[in-house]
Amino acid sequence: MSKVPLEELRAFCLTALGKSGLSSEDAARSVDVLVMTDLWGVYTHGTKSLRGYVSRLRAGGLNPKGKPKVVAQGSSWAKVDGDSSLAMVTSLFAMERAMEKARQTGIAVATVFNSCHFGAAGYYTNWAAQRGFVGLAVANDIPSVGMVGACGPLLGTNPFAFSAPSADGRPMNLDFATSVVAGGKIYRLAREGKTAPEGWLVDLQGRPTQDPSLYYQKASILPMAGHKGYGLCLLVEVLAGALTGARMRDKIGSWIKDAPEQSTGHGHFFLAIHAETLCPDFGVRMEGLSNELRSFPVAQDANPMMIPGDLERSSEKKARAEGLDLPLDVRESLAGLAMDLGIPAPTGCQA
Amino acid sequence: MSKVPLEELRAFCLTALGKSGLSSEDAARSVDVLVMTDLWGVYTHGTKSLRGYVSRLRAGGLNPKGKPKVVAQGSSWAKVDGDSSLAMVTSLFAMERAMEKARQTGIAVATVFNSCHFGAAGYYTNWAAQRGFVGLAVANDIPSVGMVGACGPLLGTNPFAFSAPSADGRPMNLDFATSVVAGGKIYRLAREGKTAPEGWLVDLQGRPTQDPSLYYQKASILPMAGHKGYGLCLLVEVLAGALTGARMRDKIGSWIKDAPEQSTGHGHFFLAIHAETLCPDFGVRMEGLSNELRSFPVAQDANPMMIPGDLERSSEKKARAEGLDLPLDVRESLAGLAMDLGIPAPTGCQA
Repeated sequence: MSKVPLEELRAFCLTALGKSGLSSEDAARSVDVLVMTDLWGVYTHGTKSLRGYVSRLRAGGLNPKGKPKVVAQGSSWAKVDGDSSLAMVTSLFAMERAMEKARQTGIAVATVFNSCHFGAAGYYTNWAAQRGFVGLAVANDIPSVGMVGACGPLLGTNPFAFSAPSADGRPMNLDFATSVVAGGKIYRLAREGKTAPEGWLVDLQGRPTQDPSLYYQKASILPMAGHKGYGLCLLVEVLAGALTGARMRDKIGSWIKDAPEQSTGHGHFFLAIHAETLCPDFGVRMEGLSNELRSFPVAQDANPMMIPGDLERSSEKKARAEGLDLPLDVRESLAGLAMDLGIPAPTGCQA
Repeated sequence: MSKVPLEELRAFCLTALGKSGLSSEDAARSVDVLVMTDLWGVYTHGTKSLRGYVSRLRAGGLNPKGKPKVVAQGSSWAKVDGDSSLAMVTSLFAMERAMEKARQTGIAVATVFNSCHFGAAGYYTNWAAQRGFVGLAVANDIPSVGMVGACGPLLGTNPFAFSAPSADGRPMNLDFATSVVAGGKIYRLAREGKTAPEGWLVDLQGRPTQDPSLYYQKASILPMAGHKGYGLCLLVEVLAGALTGARMRDKIGSWIKDAPEQSTGHGHFFLAIHAETLCPDFGVRMEGLSNELRSFPVAQDANPMMIPGDLERSSEKKARAEGLDLPLDVRESLAGLAMDLGIPAPTGCQA
């Protein structure tokens, strides 16, 4: 398959969001999120999702003219009503509020309710890290994660992201689902007719299974690292759900499966620490720590050690030079979106 | 083995710390930490460690008359110099500073340098949760965690704790090592002559091993959940080390193996969110969320679902009623401490 040219992909996404009623500023910021996620190689959370977002924007479940607003605040916190805006718009707004306040007080948080699927959590924390902040971002989602013994899904795949700035401009950027894998990877196995590894899935009777086609109506994903991951998954629900006033667990709507006329009510939590305020030489200390690990002796046949974010930066560099090597499911989704809107698809994404 | 009576254990520990030069207030607060940890059944991190702490307090590596102090601060942060005090004293001091500020601004953090091993991270977050705060606590430690391919340990077992208050007085209380297991469990396997499960250990050539006796001079523990756990382990080093000004990685001293005359220089990070400020009905929302999970349908042969902290509360209740069922290694350590100090050991702990 030919590579997808970066500028064509960006222009296509801008057109799609413009046709969905977003302001050009909101569209541009949102497209930055989705395209950067693809550049990083995190294809499950990039432009692949745009078709679903656009469908909700056009049906009313997402409000293209929505304006996220602060409905309550103190010197180090803000409570944000997402106004059912596209969650990229809301998330950047919220992280900005947290950074503004953290610049004054050292650390601050923005909680968000009335939002939707926000894509890659690590985009927002990396964005904060590039501006000098240690960032943390989490979001809740519909239940799809279970435990052996439990007859159904308990919590969402609840992503967790953390970034920290470094003097050399290469922040640490950690972003993971608190489930053993992201849901997108199970869907892909099912589509490819493959078996899931042991320890990934549990059926609705609480028994382990390896059939990915059961997910998610008839099976749940297991948390990462057993009980520790269950605890982390719950931590995310507490910060993004209980603390924000957002919907929780099965009260949340599915942004993929539920009627696009309905809002989903997801919650998020964004934390920012102004690193230099707390520790004037933080960037240098972070660079030193990162480079100690990167240069750590490894076995002859082993890859060099990396810092979370290194892999994504190397993928980004390649994709900027050569175009994006988007997987088939992403191209199909973009082709479908082009059809939905009656606009030409980017090169390499024709149906 | 007979149970160890709670009040006898407490009195013994108070005497030991008093004889080591601690003020009665510092001793009482520290004993609360260690004894509660045993009551919770977390025997690897309770009174078993007291002998090591006392040895350092008497040799000078810990300063019995130390006074942790705030050396820099803003409205939502404080930087604490632990003054090489017993880390329980320093940690409670730091969490108090974070809570004080969070009561004013919504959220605050205290960073700590010049500290030592602080025991169970979850004690401090649970303590904050009982006072109405969502709490997070992490600490760095000497490298003992490696990755397959890496020729040696990269980072510490770096504990992570998170608690959240609930209207019914039963906070969520999550506390885990970011390694696949705590180091204490490997030592126990070695002592019992057992083999370690696959996926727990890696030797100094970066090859997987199952021999616990190699730990930690000749083998490292693996992180929980592979790369995700490596990332979390690094997150802890960033917050507790890079951000605090504390020693990092191999610059930290071992509180167990290094000369007790030397300070270890550990770092900690304590975060407090005043839950009611951000979300007036947080306690009720948290209780609802917890009870939804506790009452979730389970398979006929399965245990009911729990919230992190439930197991420890049930262990505490039993131990308060019946006395503490301390494992042999804890009793031996207490007996050794009694000998070191020439004082009588508690019932059930005679050498």
